[in-house]
Amino acid sequence: MARVTPVLTSGSVDRAAGRQVFCKAEIFQRGGAFKFRGAYNSIAALGAEGQQQGVVTHSSGNHAGAVAMAAQLLGCTAHIVAPRTAPRVKLDAVKAFGGKLTLCDPTMEAREAACQKIQDETGAHFVPPYNYGETICGQGTIALEFLEQCAGLQAIVVPVSGGGMLSGIAVAAKALEPGIRIIAAEPVGLNDAADVALCMAAGELVEVPRTRTIADGLQARLGDLTWPIVRDHVDDVITVEENEIVGGMRLCYERMKVVVEPSGAVGLAAVVGEKFAERHGDLERVGIILCGGNVDLNTRGFWESWRA
Amino acid sequence: MARVTPVLTSGSVDRAAGRQVFCKAEIFQRGGAFKFRGAYNSIAALGAEGQQQGVVTHSSGNHAGAVAMAAQLLGCTAHIVAPRTAPRVKLDAVKAFGGKLTLCDPTMEAREAACQKIQDETGAHFVPPYNYGETICGQGTIALEFLEQCAGLQAIVVPVSGGGMLSGIAVAAKALEPGIRIIAAEPVGLNDAADVALCMAAGELVEVPRTRTIADGLQARLGDLTWPIVRDHVDDVITVEENEIVGGMRLCYERMKVVVEPSGAVGLAAVVGEKFAERHGDLERVGIILCGGNVDLNTRGFWESWRA
Repeated sequence: MARVTPVLTSGSVDRAAGRQVFCKAEIFQRGGAFKFRGAYNSIAALGAEGQQQGVVTHSSGNHAGAVAMAAQLLGCTAHIVAPRTAPRVKLDAVKAFGGKLTLCDPTMEAREAACQKIQDETGAHFVPPYNYGETICGQGTIALEFLEQCAGLQAIVVPVSGGGMLSGIAVAAKALEPGIRIIAAEPVGLNDAADVALCMAAGELVEVPRTRTIADGLQARLGDLTWPIVRDHVDDVITVEENEIVGGMRLCYERMKVVVEPSGAVGLAAVVGEKFAERHGDLERVGIILCGGNVDLNTRGFWESWRA
Repeated sequence: MARVTPVLTSGSVDRAAGRQVFCKAEIFQRGGAFKFRGAYNSIAALGAEGQQQGVVTHSSGNHAGAVAMAAQLLGCTAHIVAPRTAPRVKLDAVKAFGGKLTLCDPTMEAREAACQKIQDETGAHFVPPYNYGETICGQGTIALEFLEQCAGLQAIVVPVSGGGMLSGIAVAAKALEPGIRIIAAEPVGLNDAADVALCMAAGELVEVPRTRTIADGLQARLGDLTWPIVRDHVDDVITVEENEIVGGMRLCYERMKVVVEPSGAVGLAAVVGEKFAERHGDLERVGIILCGGNVDLNTRGFWESWRA
């Protein structure tokens, strides 16, 4: 089962944001990221019979480790396809949790082909990273806990990539608190490719190139299941620049004393920025998700980004 | 008042230690370190009248920020003397909490002289960092909380410098649980200067040169008040090498997702080491103190130590 993660607060963060900020620390989730919730729910839903064939997924990030870990806990084989270029820390997690790792070329075609081959050979069930009902429901448990832990939350700010966590939280939170504001936080990237903001502006699922950003966990695109939920239940999208993401990380490391990966700091970056103050200045109690903490401390580039 | 800090656990840490490890996260204490507890207790004990003259201390580390913060909360002026060479992050904390900072040469004589001058001019009360009853009692509240939070703790492993935290925890914990083992964790340093281990072996307070270690918060020496408490109530001292401290930090950052300063990781380094397994292999539930999280992320040397 997933851990009930703690909610952290910090006087320094409150001052930076100009309001009370409650941080749901999914960095302390099993495997160091929220992804375990959706993976566990998806594999558990297969039942004992479905689990016998094993599961398979492809991922360059936290979903890979989450599926390996959830499968191990449920006594089921996990095949993980990952691009050769995936962060070492995330590949190591797969192996640590007993996942069978297959490396492939870093293209979506190669990943899907390798995945299909394993499915054909073993009958393993595919565990999608976000565009899947059981995944969305699993991530939604973040909101159930958060609203129980923090009375009177007026908004939740959620980093968005494929939209699994965002849509799960939006549905669960609004079911419990219809007046709560759900705000997506999205990197605009070096190539101005904030797809959720662009889709919301267009009112339809538009094709946008992959975001080039240090927030390597937030490069996916909304899917046909997550998009309509986001469209109907998300109130606003705040886009953040690369330097704002580093600023959010600094607040986490220096003030809150927690390790987050760049993607994990995007919600905090949004809340302390000017756009948030302009558009949501009325809010007094805001929740954010520190959604992942898996960084490769051995990568020179990571530390150098601090000094930029 | 001090925060009740959470207790963190990690499957990876338990596996590394070969037993269950409970981590009292004083990194989340006000000001990012346990020092606030003793500083607040010392200043509160002066009473309203004593506080009117203000307080003064000298420190190159977390005690400086703790005194400034506690004084601010109690509405009292804090004069802080610090060596010019103190870490920037710790000097910034003093200023952020409204402390009046006086920089001096990096010698104990210069620090004491500057402190005495302020006492003479203002009548401010000196707030000692460790060798003082009210400080020891304040740090002892860590043990009160810890034993309430974790049933059945068999030992607490405490990083030691001047011995304020160690003696406070030893007295409080043994009053509540006479059978609990209190174990000091101490850097041996590049100059083989583990003073607590040497004093314990000699059975008296011996003079040992200042430890040269990356654990910059653990360079002080036992005092005439802390030494007899340590001698009578501490069961063992585990010394750790510099590379073990970096290993402890790695576990904190990579596995537990928390930011600790080198001194803060010394207890964890001790628990996962061979000496601990040899001498305390019978223990199943061990508590450690992650005592501080104030690191200067802008210092090139800090990150380079990871790559060593």
